[in-house]
Amino acid sequence: MDTIRTYFNSFITLSDTEWSDFKKCLSQKLVEQKSFILKKGEVCSYLAFIENGLFRFYNMEDGEEKITSFFFSGDFISNYRSFLTGLPSKHFIESMQDSVIYKIDKKDLLALYDKHQNLERLGRLIAENLYLNVAKRLDSFLFDSPKQRYEDLVRRNSKLLEAIPQYMLASYLGIKPETLSRIRARK
Amino acid sequence: MDTIRTYFNSFITLSDTEWSDFKKCLSQKLVEQKSFILKKGEVCSYLAFIENGLFRFYNMEDGEEKITSFFFSGDFISNYRSFLTGLPSKHFIESMQDSVIYKIDKKDLLALYDKHQNLERLGRLIAENLYLNVAKRLDSFLFDSPKQRYEDLVRRNSKLLEAIPQYMLASYLGIKPETLSRIRARK
Repeated sequence: MDTIRTYFNSFITLSDTEWSDFKKCLSQKLVEQKSFILKKGEVCSYLAFIENGLFRFYNMEDGEEKITSFFFSGDFISNYRSFLTGLPSKHFIESMQDSVIYKIDKKDLLALYDKHQNLERLGRLIAENLYLNVAKRLDSFLFDSPKQRYEDLVRRNSKLLEAIPQYMLASYLGIKPETLSRIRARK
Repeated sequence: MDTIRTYFNSFITLSDTEWSDFKKCLSQKLVEQKSFILKKGEVCSYLAFIENGLFRFYNMEDGEEKITSFFFSGDFISNYRSFLTGLPSKHFIESMQDSVIYKIDKKDLLALYDKHQNLERLGRLIAENLYLNVAKRLDSFLFDSPKQRYEDLVRRNSKLLEAIPQYMLASYLGIKPETLSRIRARK
């Protein structure tokens, strides 16, 4: 759980009381490989923190997986859109390894916001950070070539490349597996 | 200014004191047509609310405008990324009509967050809302065809189509003007 507090501290310093109240709301969950922590049609009512593991976030289109994100140890994971709106998820979240996560329910989180302004601030800072991430990914689709997107991915997250099959990486980059092979061969 | 309070009320109810403190930090600005309220290389240190007017948000690539967004009366406008990170803007924000805006400086906004938890909550809710907007736009680029993107735009924002030249709409949709003409001709 200390990893979570370290992550929070990159945004804001929590007092011991604030952290202790937050920690009380976390529940640990062991997730076997190839299990779903969210299925299409379900409402995502929690945020989870990955203590150990690897997950992918995808939807199915004409029988084909379209991968939006991978999540690693140390990442927060959620269908944040479904979490915020209360609308059913269009995506699946599936574990790619045996994993350990900590979950917090939305109702508990909102109660913590009421109790501690500092946690409300943390919620704002994390929402702003998630905005920056998704805006960056939108820009990469609008303005970068597949080759640039691949190189950017390698630079930012080289651990991705070891743990993930090529066809999934291609799906994440929005390109065909053959195109990814060509890009890698040229390097 | 009442439009701003109405907009805020769609997220949260502000007390008269909270609203009055917020209002004191707003400054009115008249913006002539074809003026920049932000240029590439500048840090965006404010949020602005459009009382009346029309703006576009774009960058230049090889001498060509790439339009990310249009902003109308009743919208908040900012380079939110530059505002949050303090990094120089890669984009221009330019008025397309004579416009009236209200600006609030970042330092004043942060001081208001310190003073009123309810305003901090409003900041969180607006950040979450901006996340939802940009995530939706990312999805439309990942999963929709140009035709679907155009139809979605018409459905959501038909006033766009009256006020904006075709070549700018095409830039916003990420397609060539000829493709947009073909899509419109088929309808």
